[in-house]
Amino acid sequence: MKRYARLAATLGQRIEQGLYRPGDRLPSVRALSEEHGVSISTVQQAYRVLEDAGLVEPRPKSGFFVPEQRRVPALPAMTRPAQRPVDISQWDQVLEQVRTSPGDNLIQLGRGTPDISSPSLKPLLRAMANAARRSDLRALGYEGIQGSLPLREQIARLMLDSGCRVPPSEIIVTTGCQEALAITLRAICQPGDIVAIDSPSFHGAMQALKAHGLKALEIPTDPVNGVSLEALELAMEQWPVKLIMLTPNCNNPLGYIMPDTRKRALLSLAQRYDVPILEDDVYGELAYAYPRPRSIKSFDSDDRVLLASSFSKTVAPGLRTGWVVPGRYLERILHLKYIASGTCAPQPQMALAEFVGGGHYEPHIRRMRAQYQRHRDLMSDWVSRYFPDGTRASRPQGGFMLWVELDPRFDSVRLNQALRPECVQVAAGSIFSASGKYRNCLRMNYSSPELPRIEEAVRRVGAAATRLLEETQALESSPEPA
Amino acid sequence: MKRYARLAATLGQRIEQGLYRPGDRLPSVRALSEEHGVSISTVQQAYRVLEDAGLVEPRPKSGFFVPEQRRVPALPAMTRPAQRPVDISQWDQVLEQVRTSPGDNLIQLGRGTPDISSPSLKPLLRAMANAARRSDLRALGYEGIQGSLPLREQIARLMLDSGCRVPPSEIIVTTGCQEALAITLRAICQPGDIVAIDSPSFHGAMQALKAHGLKALEIPTDPVNGVSLEALELAMEQWPVKLIMLTPNCNNPLGYIMPDTRKRALLSLAQRYDVPILEDDVYGELAYAYPRPRSIKSFDSDDRVLLASSFSKTVAPGLRTGWVVPGRYLERILHLKYIASGTCAPQPQMALAEFVGGGHYEPHIRRMRAQYQRHRDLMSDWVSRYFPDGTRASRPQGGFMLWVELDPRFDSVRLNQALRPECVQVAAGSIFSASGKYRNCLRMNYSSPELPRIEEAVRRVGAAATRLLEETQALESSPEPA
Ligand SMILES: Cc1ncc(COP(=O)(O)O)c(C=O)c1O
Ligand SMILES: Cc1ncc(COP(=O)(O)O)c(C=O)c1O
Repeated sequence: MKRYARLAATLGQRIEQGLYRPGDRLPSVRALSEEHGVSISTVQQAYRVLEDAGLVEPRPKSGFFVPEQRRVPALPAMTRPAQRPVDISQWDQVLEQVRTSPGDNLIQLGRGTPDISSPSLKPLLRAMANAARRSDLRALGYEGIQGSLPLREQIARLMLDSGCRVPPSEIIVTTGCQEALAITLRAICQPGDIVAIDSPSFHGAMQALKAHGLKALEIPTDPVNGVSLEALELAMEQWPVKLIMLTPNCNNPLGYIMPDTRKRALLSLAQRYDVPILEDDVYGELAYAYPRPRSIKSFDSDDRVLLASSFSKTVAPGLRTGWVVPGRYLERILHLKYIASGTCAPQPQMALAEFVGGGHYEPHIRRMRAQYQRHRDLMSDWVSRYFPDGTRASRPQGGFMLWVELDPRFDSVRLNQALRPECVQVAAGSIFSASGKYRNCLRMNYSSPELPRIEEAVRRVGAAATRLLEETQALESSPEPA
Repeated sequence: MKRYARLAATLGQRIEQGLYRPGDRLPSVRALSEEHGVSISTVQQAYRVLEDAGLVEPRPKSGFFVPEQRRVPALPAMTRPAQRPVDISQWDQVLEQVRTSPGDNLIQLGRGTPDISSPSLKPLLRAMANAARRSDLRALGYEGIQGSLPLREQIARLMLDSGCRVPPSEIIVTTGCQEALAITLRAICQPGDIVAIDSPSFHGAMQALKAHGLKALEIPTDPVNGVSLEALELAMEQWPVKLIMLTPNCNNPLGYIMPDTRKRALLSLAQRYDVPILEDDVYGELAYAYPRPRSIKSFDSDDRVLLASSFSKTVAPGLRTGWVVPGRYLERILHLKYIASGTCAPQPQMALAEFVGGGHYEPHIRRMRAQYQRHRDLMSDWVSRYFPDGTRASRPQGGFMLWVELDPRFDSVRLNQALRPECVQVAAGSIFSASGKYRNCLRMNYSSPELPRIEEAVRRVGAAATRLLEETQALESSPEPA
């Protein structure tokens, strides 16, 4: 890492951790130059990075300040899901969410789409058009079942950043991360098996459990540190857990990054109970801090971790291009991949190999990280302003989703109904629980560059939430009907 | 249908049925004009269609003749698979086939790729490039889970040709026909269930049975009329069949079209035993005779038939765009579709909607049908010439694959090994059987426009087959080793 980048990371962390509070003046350029033994211009560069990320604000003639106007809601407490294996419900709610097509007038705060309008994606669109023009017509034929080698080479290279050294021959390209998750679950588990998951957890993964007849054992999860290892160990003692499935980096929906020490501890716990881990790294590259966090897979010494990921959140979900590193399950997962959807479409693979290999991926990701971090602060602020008092929210360390927790009596499914005439949709918290917990929570997407439109949508959500909550309270305090 | 097209169809049928033999002179233009009460120019147009299809040959000053030089191998007999439910094997052989990437030097006679180099696909490539250029960026985002509505509207329109009136709301877009088959199997069957299938049968469908823990009950099948209804009824009496799965139109690998009367009889058999039918129509549009054959679904009166298909054989497999008409299983199949791979890629859907909606599909299909029919005759002829005496072959009525049956002692798996240095690959017959039958058979693809290259490949396959068979015979007739 360059000097200025390291300095920016250090300062950024201090601000994030609250060492400097909103409105505080930050150390002068000269002071930092002396403290860190770097040149004046290095400090200036570092401040420019922080400014781009929205973490500091220059005031003419007075230096750099922590932006004042941001308000930050309090964090939710550790979650408390049912601590026994349950069958998965909530499909109706998920279906309602995934049924809508884009382009309807609806503002879909509920979906997991990244910003796909960024100019840094222009080279990708060019590459897609190129692939369709290629005279050898590979774009139209069947690929090999393991996926395009040039793309697997690029994926292997990218994975080095997460501390993983995986040869292209040990990567299988899949139809998005969803297919990677579904086939891996089937490769490892039999119907009736119990899978331990972080909670709240991505609904696609949970619905895959449902489809395979598996039971979810939801583990209490801290919105800063991730899954509770103590609770996980207790659960593993008590139940025959067949697999641990989680998203440790830039978790969906909570946004935390599990600290490395805890990743290691989780791994040794899995070793002790001899259970494999399915790690979903789909948001890992979108961590705001550079370098990106390590994957659990990178600590894996005995081929226990299977890693699933995709370009859906980093580049574009419409490419439907993901991958799995299946370890010892390679042959079995290749079979399940073949029967699930045959070989993967060649054109997006060609376009991605060109986009990543041509050096367009890194600048795009840098830009997205900075944008999402800025938007996180904005959305946190809006939640503080527009939502009922006492509303709590996650403090994501990566990705582009905010988790919001309201009064325990609140019902986000009813909220979505109330929002229909307003043409806004949020993700109801209950779809992130196997058994319909978290009805008082919701998740909102802050990827979009259309900030005024999003702020207006959040304002409407907040107003509707306030109204609903007041109704509930009025009902509760009114005398029983005769 | 236009007059000349109807006349061409009538004459074509007579030739196909052997009413005119190779070398025969066909009726004169004037005679046909009188016989059918049409103009001279209509007859001339009809002859031009037949000439394009390779069915007639003009000889200067003498009129039109049935081409002389074509030889046609004898048809294989009714197949005789094991008539009890079996677990599916043969994955190793399938894997070997689907592992190879295109662009290797290999001539892949074994794969199911249509001709994707046809100029009639140019508008598709343009549409793909357009979709990548669109400013609304829908190509990069998540689609709705049921698939793009404009595409479903086009699919509904195309299905009218097979006699099916299905509204777009009852169609689900899938990642190829393979995904449609896999999720439908899972929607209907539980592990351990028995599925009756035509035999030989498409390996992807059989491997899907394997992955779901289902057993295949392979039904004897006639290379002209399709699955034996008598054998099927006996099987249904004896075993608790949960589903009938077959490809009645332009069957892979046998190429037959089941006559309508037999489709109806099959349906009433399924009604009597109250068993659903999964109909794979992926080649139905590629029937050489116009209009295309009806689907079993089109006779369905009690929502018993589920239809799976795709654009992989008619347009291009690399689009990975298929569909299922799930009938009463809609909700369940939507769930399984969601967990299998999430929503489908929007760009191929946009491109296909533009290609079909823009009127480019019909001329493309017409062209392909004529090309494949011509190539069938050529490949039948080559098999007669280059393969050992006594070799039999199917007489496909659509699609682009020939099924070849050799001496019972022949082994096509060894053939593929022997062909490796020759850079040619065929599909070993055994992958089309659940239990590894048909080792003495193989399937070859005749879609490619590079005829000399394909003829040379077939010549090498024939030579290698002859060599192997001679070795086997020599071994058998040599005295026992001491
Ligand atoms: C944690 C997580 N995993 C997987 C996925 C699915 O990714 P893909 O679109 O690549 O199938 C998502 C998408 O929302 C997700 O949030
Ligand atoms: C009969 C049959 N069904 C389905 C398929 C799979 O089609 P797709 O490529 O659309 O998944 C094939 C491809 O070979 C096939 O032959």
